[in-house]
Amino acid sequence: QINADRLWSTILETAQFGGTPKGGVKRLTLSEEDRQVRDWFRAACEAAGCTVSVDALGNMFALRPGRDASKAPLGIGSHLDTQPTGGKFDGILGTLAALEVVRALNDAGIETDTPLCVVNWTNEEGSRFAPAMMGSAGHVADLPLAEILARTDAEGVSVGEALDAIGYRGEVPLGTQKFSGFLELHIEQGPILEAENLTIGVVEHGQGIIWYNGRVTGFESHAGSTPMHLRKDALATLSEIVLAVEKLAVDLGPNAVGTVADITIARQSRNVIPGEITFATEFRTPDAGILEALDKGLQAAVARIADKRKVSVQLDTIWRKEPTHFDPKVTGAVAAAAQKLGLSHRPMVSGAGHDSFHLATIVPTGMIFVPCKDGVSHNELESATKDDCAAGANVLLHAVLALAGD
Amino acid sequence: QINADRLWSTILETAQFGGTPKGGVKRLTLSEEDRQVRDWFRAACEAAGCTVSVDALGNMFALRPGRDASKAPLGIGSHLDTQPTGGKFDGILGTLAALEVVRALNDAGIETDTPLCVVNWTNEEGSRFAPAMMGSAGHVADLPLAEILARTDAEGVSVGEALDAIGYRGEVPLGTQKFSGFLELHIEQGPILEAENLTIGVVEHGQGIIWYNGRVTGFESHAGSTPMHLRKDALATLSEIVLAVEKLAVDLGPNAVGTVADITIARQSRNVIPGEITFATEFRTPDAGILEALDKGLQAAVARIADKRKVSVQLDTIWRKEPTHFDPKVTGAVAAAAQKLGLSHRPMVSGAGHDSFHLATIVPTGMIFVPCKDGVSHNELESATKDDCAAGANVLLHAVLALAGD
Ligand SMILES: NC(=O)NCCC(=O)O
Ligand SMILES: NC(=O)NCCC(=O)O
Repeated sequence: QINADRLWSTILETAQFGGTPKGGVKRLTLSEEDRQVRDWFRAACEAAGCTVSVDALGNMFALRPGRDASKAPLGIGSHLDTQPTGGKFDGILGTLAALEVVRALNDAGIETDTPLCVVNWTNEEGSRFAPAMMGSAGHVADLPLAEILARTDAEGVSVGEALDAIGYRGEVPLGTQKFSGFLELHIEQGPILEAENLTIGVVEHGQGIIWYNGRVTGFESHAGSTPMHLRKDALATLSEIVLAVEKLAVDLGPNAVGTVADITIARQSRNVIPGEITFATEFRTPDAGILEALDKGLQAAVARIADKRKVSVQLDTIWRKEPTHFDPKVTGAVAAAAQKLGLSHRPMVSGAGHDSFHLATIVPTGMIFVPCKDGVSHNELESATKDDCAAGANVLLHAVLALAGD
Repeated sequence: QINADRLWSTILETAQFGGTPKGGVKRLTLSEEDRQVRDWFRAACEAAGCTVSVDALGNMFALRPGRDASKAPLGIGSHLDTQPTGGKFDGILGTLAALEVVRALNDAGIETDTPLCVVNWTNEEGSRFAPAMMGSAGHVADLPLAEILARTDAEGVSVGEALDAIGYRGEVPLGTQKFSGFLELHIEQGPILEAENLTIGVVEHGQGIIWYNGRVTGFESHAGSTPMHLRKDALATLSEIVLAVEKLAVDLGPNAVGTVADITIARQSRNVIPGEITFATEFRTPDAGILEALDKGLQAAVARIADKRKVSVQLDTIWRKEPTHFDPKVTGAVAAAAQKLGLSHRPMVSGAGHDSFHLATIVPTGMIFVPCKDGVSHNELESATKDDCAAGANVLLHAVLALAGD
C-alpha cells in the first residue's frame, strides 16, 4: 500500500509553486513556477534513490534500478505543468503518485525485476505552446525536435528560448530513454466515474484530436455609419463558425466534442466593426471515422460562411492525433489491480489528451482514472478526494508490481 | 474663400502626432499624442489672434472677438482625438477647417458681428473612455462632471487622472463658454455622397444611439472531456447574441445598425471552454420608435439565449442618446452656402455620433458632411480629397458669415 498522507502532502506542497488565491495553480510550462516544481521534483526523486536525467525538451526521467539492468524500465508518470487557471491534480497526481510508488517500494524494501522510470513530461497542457503533449510527441518522434523548439508562445518566445531561460534544455537526446511499457494515473476530468459512484477508470481508448488555428479577415469600419449590407464583420463571421462547430459536434455525437476558444480581435474598439480575428478550434472523438467527418464538415461550413459573408477565413490544421487504443496487457493489469484491491471500476474512454497517447504508439501503455469533483478540470475549482487519489496510486503500485515483476 | 493649400498642410502636419505606418493616426484621447496636438492647436489658435481657454474636461475654446462683445459666440469645430487605428480626417478636418475659417477671415480683414469660437472637444471617439462625445456631453450637462471624471479606460486610468497626466484639466468650469449656435464640418464616414457623386451633405438628423456593456458568465472546463450537453460555453452564448444583434438591425432596417465589438475572454486558453466574456454592443437608428424596438428586442433575445443555455448574461445600458434633429435655420444656412458656391448637395442623416448632437440640445446647431473614400472611417485607410476638404471648409466659412454676420 502506498502512503496516502505522504502522497496528499506532496500534492499540497507542490501546489504552492504557482498557487492561486482560489486554490488552483498557474504553472505554465517552462515558466519560473515550472522551474521551481522541476527543481523540487528532481531533489525528491534523488532523495528517493533515483538518477535523474533531462532530455533536449526538458522531459525529466528519474530511474530506479531493477534486478535486471538489461531490461528497459517501465515508465510511470505524467506532467507538472498546468493551465493558466488550472487545478492542483491535472497531471500532478500522476507524477507524484509515480514518485510515491517508488517511495512505497523503498519503504517495503521491494526491488522490481524491471527498472522503473518516473517521468515528468514537458508541456502536456498545450496552453502556452501548441500542441499539447509536446514533450511526449518529441519523445516518440511524432514531431521533429527542430519544429518543436521553434514553436512560439503569444509573446513570441520559442520553446527553445523558454527551455534555456529556466535551465531545462537537457543533454540527453530525444528518445534516448527507452521504456518497456508506460502507465499513467490521472484524474478523469469528466463526470462519469462520479456519476456512477465508481473509484477506478480503466482507460482503454483515447479520443482522436484535431486542433486548428483560424483567422477571419473582414474589414474594419465605423459601427454607426456602415450600413448592415455593406459590412464585412469578422466577429459575426466567427459567431457563425462557433455555432457550426457546436452543431457538428452535437450532430455527430454523443461521442464528439467541438470547441472554439482563444480569440483575439485585432485593433479592437467598441465602435469599430471587427475586421480581423484569430481563433483556435478543435474536435475530439474516439471514432476515427467521425473525426474525419467533423473535419470535412468544418471545412465545408467555413467555406460556406466565408462565401456568404464575402470575408476570408483561413483554417490551418496544426495538430491531428488519431484515436488511441491502449494495450490489453496493461489495461488488464490495471483492472486486475483494482479488482484485487476491492475497488469498483469500469472501462473508459479518455476525453482529455494525455502523454500516454503518444507512448502507446511505441510501447504497451495504459492509464488509470480516478474521479474529480463534478467532472471539472482546467479550472481552479478542480478537486479530487484524498481517498480517491490514494486508491489510484495503489492501483498504480499493484499494476506496476504485476508488470515490472516483484 | 478659404486657403485650400493651408488647410491641407495643417491636416498633414497634425497627422504626424500619432501617425501610423499605414498613413492613419493613433491618437487616443488624453494620450501623449493628444497632448502634442493640443499644444500645437493652442499655439496655432493664439497665432491667429484667438484667446484659448480650457475647461474641466479639457475641452478647448479659442475665442475670436466680434463687433458685438455682448453676443455669445458661434461655435465651430470638432475633435482632434482618434480611434486606435483611425484616419487623419475624422474630427480633425472639422477642427482644422474651423481654424482655417479664422485664418481666412484674418487674411480678408473681416470682423464678424457675433464672436467666433473654435472648439476642440475632448474624447469624441469613446474608444479609450466610454461613452463617445464625452466632452460635449459634459458641456451640455448630459452627464455629471464627477461621473465623467471617474470613468476608466481598460488599464483602470480615470478620465481625471488622464487629464492631469497631460496637463489639460483646465480652470474653466464646465458649460461656462456659451454659444449662440454651433456648426461642425465632418467627413461623412459613410458611402452615400460618394455613391451619388455629391460634394456636400446638409446634415438634418443624427441617429439615436444605445451603448451597452455586457458580460456572459458560463463555466470554464476542459474542452476535451466535457460533453456538449454539460457545457456552459460563454463564447457560444456570445455568438448567438452577436447574430441576434445583427438580425435585429437587419429586420428593423434599412435604417438601423447593430454591432458587437470589444470582446475580452477571461483567462483564455485554447483547450478551455470559455467561461466568462465581456463585450460591448450598440444600436443606432434615426427613428426613436425603432431605437426602442431594438432595445426591447435585444433584452428579449438575451433573456431567451441565457435561459436556453443556462448561463448568466448581464447587459447594462451605459449610454442612450435619442435621435437628433438639427436646427432648420442652421441647416438652411449650410444649404444656402453650398448653393451659392455652386456645390452639389443633399440633406442627410448622420450615421456616426458627433459632438453637435449634444450641442443641438442647447443651441441652434448644424453639420456639414463631405465625402470620404468608399465611405470608410475608423480605419487607417480613411481618405478624403483635398478638393472636398476645401469645399466643405468654404461652405463652413459662408455659413458662418451668414449666421455670425459679416
Ligand atoms: N489532460 C489534459 O488536460 N491535457 C491537456 C491537453 C488537452 O487534452 O487539451
Ligand atoms: N464621428 C465619429 O466617428 N464618432 C465616434 C463616435 C461614434 O459615433 O461611435
